[in-house]
Amino acid sequence: MTLQIDHDRLVATMEEQATYGATEDGGLHRLALTESDREIRDWFVDQLQAAELTVRIDEFGNIFGRRKGSNPDAAPVLLGSHLDSQPNGGIYDGALGVVAALEFVRALNDEDIETVRPVEVVNWTNEEGSRFQPAMQGSGVWAGAHDIEVERSKTDDDGVALGEALDNIGYRGDIPAEPDSEYEAYLELHVEQGPKLAETGADVGVVTGIVGFTWGAVTFHGEADHSGPTPMHHRSDALVAAADLITAIRRIPGTLGDQTVGTVGYVDTKPNSINVIPGEVTVTWGFRDPDDEVVEQAYQRVLEEAEHVAKREGVDYETEERMRAPAISFSDRPVDAVRQAAENRDCRYLELISGAGHDATHLASVCDTSMVFAVSEGGKSHSPAEFTSWNDCYEAATVLANAALELANNVTK
Amino acid sequence: MTLQIDHDRLVATMEEQATYGATEDGGLHRLALTESDREIRDWFVDQLQAAELTVRIDEFGNIFGRRKGSNPDAAPVLLGSHLDSQPNGGIYDGALGVVAALEFVRALNDEDIETVRPVEVVNWTNEEGSRFQPAMQGSGVWAGAHDIEVERSKTDDDGVALGEALDNIGYRGDIPAEPDSEYEAYLELHVEQGPKLAETGADVGVVTGIVGFTWGAVTFHGEADHSGPTPMHHRSDALVAAADLITAIRRIPGTLGDQTVGTVGYVDTKPNSINVIPGEVTVTWGFRDPDDEVVEQAYQRVLEEAEHVAKREGVDYETEERMRAPAISFSDRPVDAVRQAAENRDCRYLELISGAGHDATHLASVCDTSMVFAVSEGGKSHSPAEFTSWNDCYEAATVLANAALELANNVTK
Repeated sequence: MTLQIDHDRLVATMEEQATYGATEDGGLHRLALTESDREIRDWFVDQLQAAELTVRIDEFGNIFGRRKGSNPDAAPVLLGSHLDSQPNGGIYDGALGVVAALEFVRALNDEDIETVRPVEVVNWTNEEGSRFQPAMQGSGVWAGAHDIEVERSKTDDDGVALGEALDNIGYRGDIPAEPDSEYEAYLELHVEQGPKLAETGADVGVVTGIVGFTWGAVTFHGEADHSGPTPMHHRSDALVAAADLITAIRRIPGTLGDQTVGTVGYVDTKPNSINVIPGEVTVTWGFRDPDDEVVEQAYQRVLEEAEHVAKREGVDYETEERMRAPAISFSDRPVDAVRQAAENRDCRYLELISGAGHDATHLASVCDTSMVFAVSEGGKSHSPAEFTSWNDCYEAATVLANAALELANNVTK
Repeated sequence: MTLQIDHDRLVATMEEQATYGATEDGGLHRLALTESDREIRDWFVDQLQAAELTVRIDEFGNIFGRRKGSNPDAAPVLLGSHLDSQPNGGIYDGALGVVAALEFVRALNDEDIETVRPVEVVNWTNEEGSRFQPAMQGSGVWAGAHDIEVERSKTDDDGVALGEALDNIGYRGDIPAEPDSEYEAYLELHVEQGPKLAETGADVGVVTGIVGFTWGAVTFHGEADHSGPTPMHHRSDALVAAADLITAIRRIPGTLGDQTVGTVGYVDTKPNSINVIPGEVTVTWGFRDPDDEVVEQAYQRVLEEAEHVAKREGVDYETEERMRAPAISFSDRPVDAVRQAAENRDCRYLELISGAGHDATHLASVCDTSMVFAVSEGGKSHSPAEFTSWNDCYEAATVLANAALELANNVTK
């Protein structure tokens, strides 16, 4: 049998969630643990309860809704993603995965289907990592990758601790932030955030793994000085060294691999005045590749380039790797379930490796995990220009639902 | 005769002014029209009154103290500088010129000297231009270079209008912000803010003019996108183009002239997140040279480079020149007076062109103008590391005083 998702309800639910934290240009500004995050969580809990799910909220604010299975002792199938957004991000990133998971249980309710295994829908706390670092924080705590007290003490740019922000919005739950049973599988639908599905004409993506990455920062220490009377040969301009590194990072991926990417996304210039030679500049790096060795090569190249550009301009520097994640290969079983659901629907699908980290990264250490990608038009995301047609949302949600149904009834393991 | 400045009182007065807006690292954070600017103005007015000067405050907050001359109708000699500072700047920039002017009239009082011409001491509003733009604003309004209502409506980063800030600290005076008579001359003592005096072993600088400059900004418009799944060849990274321009601006001066300088002091990156390809980046330029033609060449080169780097990265861009100031040659008479004072004192002096703009820039359009430079150790300024030995402060103040005395008694013009 094929489970039918309600297209119009999927669209209406997507449109409804997009009203919380909506920006004027049609995007979303719903940073983790802010007032708009509280509102979307209230909305999400309402949806779970309306679907007659049992709601649990853990100490880190991760929200679960559980639908019983015919075998209450069977390990559940977990589906979800995140409802927080980037600053001025789009309306699909994260939210589509949560809404699609909701639509799956709604469809089960519509058809009065009892699965063998329990099914759970989840919203992970702070996937984006823009207000509080790191990204994928809630799933990371839950999966045991991070210590909860360390993460609760992280502060935002205004010095507000995450724990305080979580308490303020009333979403510090009372159950431990950890799996309270074995889990059969985790499935996450997400927009691709890259151009590959659209370019190859695929309707949906079967995700077989996630690239590894290194994130870090280089701070250059030069000498702040008046930009007028300081001769060029007297200068140690921290920004010039940083600019040199930025252009080097643009070139590094092209020397390493065809899937390697490298980015400087953040610059902090001090004192940042038109009339003062910059004395201190911090830039971040981010490199990703499906091969951990290539990630390590990229990291080594940044260290070499930082030394080189600092010497060239006569400034000091320091580097700090802030995060390193190994590449992940998803297990065959859930990947097969997703592929089979796509084939049953007669979809054009593409198997690909995710270029972005997702909560699935951490879940893969807990249970069998896979992902479904929806088409991102033009590959755009983290911006209001992010766009997935309702038809593509529907295709991906249908594949997710049928893969989940198969796993929820699979007791052969 | 040679007028004697009181070394210890000069030092004590410098130390006293440096307590208003002092930073923990021995610098000064005394932004224009803030509470600490109000405090230093109150202190300045007290000093003027203690020296029995007649205080006038104009509508733009410029503060004048006048000492009578034997011929009350003679055009006065004006001396001064500014008491506001850069963010986390040093204690000498501006303040030394005001304090030295004060010490001149105190020395006249000590010796009971009556000059032929009246002598005035001035503190100009907002020379630094960091909270409100442009720099040299108070002297610019007074000299007629700017419309006072336009300048009063300028806002700081918090949206506070300059006029409101001026009213708030109680320094909107009641006389027009314009010369109320002819002026015989303007003399300004300032720290060099460059390394030339220290490098050549000079005790004091005789300033013969001020370099011209162009200030402006280039904004690059690329495409904000997720830094993971976006392949390198799909990117239009505004920061990469900006970095290219920064390195180009580092090179341009070396192709134009031995006194040319070029700086990028300010960068604004949007959205400025480690995980997002920058969609919009603004960088400023600043070029200076004693030759206006060279300044124009530098400006043309920036336009060419902006086009080139934008094309290379596939981004759009726009340029905006925000300020252009022609080079200034000071008049012979006050320059001769400064040189003669230095020679009479048997100082080692260096004739040089100021690499920075000063209030003297605008005064030069009103009356004969010159400047005295004090040694800047290591050329540092606009930072807490700014340093001038008390002996060098004393040397420069003595040259200023004796040049001013000569001009104040000169009636041959």
